Amino acid sequence: MYQDLGRNQANYTPLSPLSFLRKAATVHPQRLAVVHGERRLNWAQVQARCRRLASALQRMGVAEGDTVAALLPNTPAMIELHFAPAMLGAVLNALNTRLDAETLAFMLDHGEAKVVFVDREFSPVMKRALALCRQAPQVIDVDDAAIEEGEFLGEIEYEALLETGDPTFAYGLPGDEWNAIALNYTSGTTGDPKGVVYHHRGAYLNAVANIIDWGMPPHPVYLWTLPMFHCNGWCFPWTMAAVAGTQVCLRRFDRKQVLELMRTHGVTHYCGAPVVHAALAAAPEELKQGLAGVKGQVAGAAPPAAVLEEMERMGVEITHVYGLTEVYGPASICQPKPEWAQLPIDERAELNSRQGVACLLQEDMQVLDPDTLQPVPWDGASVGEIMFRGNITMKGYLKNPRATDAAFSGGWFRTGDLAVVYADGNVKIRDRSKDVIISGGENISSLEVEDVLCRHPSVLAAAVVARPDPKWGETPCAFVELKDELDLSPDAALAHCRQNLAGFKVPKRFVFGPLPRTATGKVQKFALRDAARALTDAE
Amino acid sequence: MYQDLGRNQANYTPLSPLSFLRKAATVHPQRLAVVHGERRLNWAQVQARCRRLASALQRMGVAEGDTVAALLPNTPAMIELHFAPAMLGAVLNALNTRLDAETLAFMLDHGEAKVVFVDREFSPVMKRALALCRQAPQVIDVDDAAIEEGEFLGEIEYEALLETGDPTFAYGLPGDEWNAIALNYTSGTTGDPKGVVYHHRGAYLNAVANIIDWGMPPHPVYLWTLPMFHCNGWCFPWTMAAVAGTQVCLRRFDRKQVLELMRTHGVTHYCGAPVVHAALAAAPEELKQGLAGVKGQVAGAAPPAAVLEEMERMGVEITHVYGLTEVYGPASICQPKPEWAQLPIDERAELNSRQGVACLLQEDMQVLDPDTLQPVPWDGASVGEIMFRGNITMKGYLKNPRATDAAFSGGWFRTGDLAVVYADGNVKIRDRSKDVIISGGENISSLEVEDVLCRHPSVLAAAVVARPDPKWGETPCAFVELKDELDLSPDAALAHCRQNLAGFKVPKRFVFGPLPRTATGKVQKFALRDAARALTDAE
Repeated sequence: MYQDLGRNQANYTPLSPLSFLRKAATVHPQRLAVVHGERRLNWAQVQARCRRLASALQRMGVAEGDTVAALLPNTPAMIELHFAPAMLGAVLNALNTRLDAETLAFMLDHGEAKVVFVDREFSPVMKRALALCRQAPQVIDVDDAAIEEGEFLGEIEYEALLETGDPTFAYGLPGDEWNAIALNYTSGTTGDPKGVVYHHRGAYLNAVANIIDWGMPPHPVYLWTLPMFHCNGWCFPWTMAAVAGTQVCLRRFDRKQVLELMRTHGVTHYCGAPVVHAALAAAPEELKQGLAGVKGQVAGAAPPAAVLEEMERMGVEITHVYGLTEVYGPASICQPKPEWAQLPIDERAELNSRQGVACLLQEDMQVLDPDTLQPVPWDGASVGEIMFRGNITMKGYLKNPRATDAAFSGGWFRTGDLAVVYADGNVKIRDRSKDVIISGGENISSLEVEDVLCRHPSVLAAAVVARPDPKWGETPCAFVELKDELDLSPDAALAHCRQNLAGFKVPKRFVFGPLPRTATGKVQKFALRDAARALTDAE
Repeated sequence: MYQDLGRNQANYTPLSPLSFLRKAATVHPQRLAVVHGERRLNWAQVQARCRRLASALQRMGVAEGDTVAALLPNTPAMIELHFAPAMLGAVLNALNTRLDAETLAFMLDHGEAKVVFVDREFSPVMKRALALCRQAPQVIDVDDAAIEEGEFLGEIEYEALLETGDPTFAYGLPGDEWNAIALNYTSGTTGDPKGVVYHHRGAYLNAVANIIDWGMPPHPVYLWTLPMFHCNGWCFPWTMAAVAGTQVCLRRFDRKQVLELMRTHGVTHYCGAPVVHAALAAAPEELKQGLAGVKGQVAGAAPPAAVLEEMERMGVEITHVYGLTEVYGPASICQPKPEWAQLPIDERAELNSRQGVACLLQEDMQVLDPDTLQPVPWDGASVGEIMFRGNITMKGYLKNPRATDAAFSGGWFRTGDLAVVYADGNVKIRDRSKDVIISGGENISSLEVEDVLCRHPSVLAAAVVARPDPKWGETPCAFVELKDELDLSPDAALAHCRQNLAGFKVPKRFVFGPLPRTATGKVQKFALRDAARALTDAE
């Protein structure tokens, strides 16, 4: 008898972050939404601009299911692109501004972008990428006041485009909350980048999860130290609409500027890779005044005890989170327990380095035997693979059913990260099974770097591993085995990599010699990791 | 191309509050979950008891889509019933302990309850109700240690039933988040009570909304001053699992006991009708110490300035919310703005009396012209009907398609409450179109009371309206027109009502004489409301 009662317009609404924008603009129209240099936008203005943008995109031919790409730093245009394409049912593909032209061209082609928004700073690399594209998208230039050079590539500038749009454009919600809202390419670890697809349901729930897991009050002030091209800025553009907060834009991380913006605008929250927090902690004393009460989130690795201690002294509260692009950014949280407060800083830093437990609205994170899918014992020693399950998990990889099936095999999303579980249920990563190097918050596929090295005529084999780095967390370290009779200088190897890789992927160290191998001929990466760790900085 | 990526076990989980119980028991197994007198249960124990209960219910024949009723005060059994039937896909029907046997019998029959849980205190009325039922459910007696009398009606007691259940019973989530989780009868206003059906999706989202809208930290301590039979305690049994908090049980409101429990257990949050807060504010000074930081929610009406002022002095922060059974309890919130802090208490009380704006996760609340469905101007004067839309809205009324269609007509849930909207978008109720009297947090249908009065042989016509009451908010006031030549004393009218109505519905005042009518013969209730208001307390 309960089954008779069906859905209707009154009792069912597709979950979508668009609802948060409408609410912010309706309930808090005059509240400050965006700060960028001298510019100020309130929530009514942001909504009107998003409507204009959606309307203009529609006139350009963008429709439901189309991809809208963007190569932008953290500017107002990037915030607005988190809403406007979604108003049409289109999908935002935020591109990593640190990538090379070849990779960008691959993504534009693979994602079938109809339009791409380009900041002038990145027009040189985009120009090369467009030349490489099989089917180049229409280009909208974004002429940010902070930038005075860089070629215009398209026919119309962002603000001029907005002028052509209708500020009262009527937008609804997606017909189905399962519809795609964003496409985010991971650097992947094997071959081509994979296009991770997010849906409205997950974006909505993760936006809400951010509020709860971080205990965000209404109207916080969020500083954009985290690039929005990383997992849509961990969904914070949508969270900030939900809490009708203020977003302070930032084109690039600059320690002095960040600390000034924090003080000037009363920043309450920011996120970033370990290097971001370490840089702030290392700033001169006079720059670090007036930050008490600020909250930071760190992912990629936990800050070392010294950084944590200095942050505490500054009054900044750091939360360690863990996730991947496939789970919309952070999906687990290391929630400090009240009883930790009594412990010495080293112990607290150690406890805080755990990846923790699944976020409230992510159904589950478990460490399972990858073959049997049985949970490992909670003994802090038995190693298994971290797997996620829940609504804050990607739809799948775009046009890549094989990778999608593999990632979801057994009914769990397999992270590839190996971990143990402590007796209290908290997870701690022990190793990565996929050889990813995380440098300054960016994932680097060791296989990609190895491929480039192996393409050099002198190289027989190459193995690239992470080397701990006080600034970047990790940097790639290359072990190169040369062909008989041939030679290669470190400088020549460096030049070859620079020519073929995005800057952050270029190995910082090269070591030449035969590679250690197992009996079956497999390179013993663990031995190389030890060797990399043992290299002195002067060497 | 985005449509190819479908749901699977890894990336889709039906939204259900059962997930919160599993998480609380897994992540916080040892944390205190329930306090009741001398009893203490942690979250691992609560989950194990719910599993036992589900398993025992299954053995009794309860299956998906069946109704499990409960006539219980706020005891541990009532908390556990918010999870155990759901584990089987069954539906909890929490019955109002203040109802009469006839009404209870109607609900048991209409809801087709298979089992009913009865606290000994209420076994007399349940015994009469069961005798009236067309098809009486199986009875489980709950023998709470705090109660020493009251007949056992069934064959097994609650704790003995749990003993028969399996503490490792494997429970999953509902096959569809749209499935029913709870049935709550409203007193309605015309004819029979209506059975409001909640689904797992709405229960999950409202449990989350409670955390956000009230800014609840992890592990709060919640005191059960609000009956769980009201909209499932506004979904707080599920919220408390989500935040792994502590629930302090309370059989009945007793001011002294409430204030003692608050101090003893460090209560942080409680909810209730205006009368609850007024009673606390009026307590002797020595009982009110040590409450600073406590947060209360009030629905039904905003507290008067004097109560608000006294609460502020005590350090208790009161939030005014508004809702109805059909929207899972409160669905709008009057969020104080920072700038109000400077205003005098009278102005703040006036601002705080507004019903506010829709909760974050409820899609929309608007004041619309009931005919055209156009929004009224935001001028603080134009009156329209409050309507809701969103996921925290009932599936519909059980076995009542006519009432369901009427409630949802035009794609909005129509509350029947008339209101204005201020320039800032905040809603304020002006009048109720459905003649509901809210007394001590209970809805009383004036029509039901009128019906009873009209059944007396001496009565020609009767009209019942709300009379403002300092303690109860409102009380029913009856205007009775007698038949020619016949007489009826106030005492006889009172006795007649007491015999035929639940105690809280019995009019506190009777006025005899001809009723004022319009030209078309309609009783002018507004005139009677004025007359009721004008009655002096001594009269």
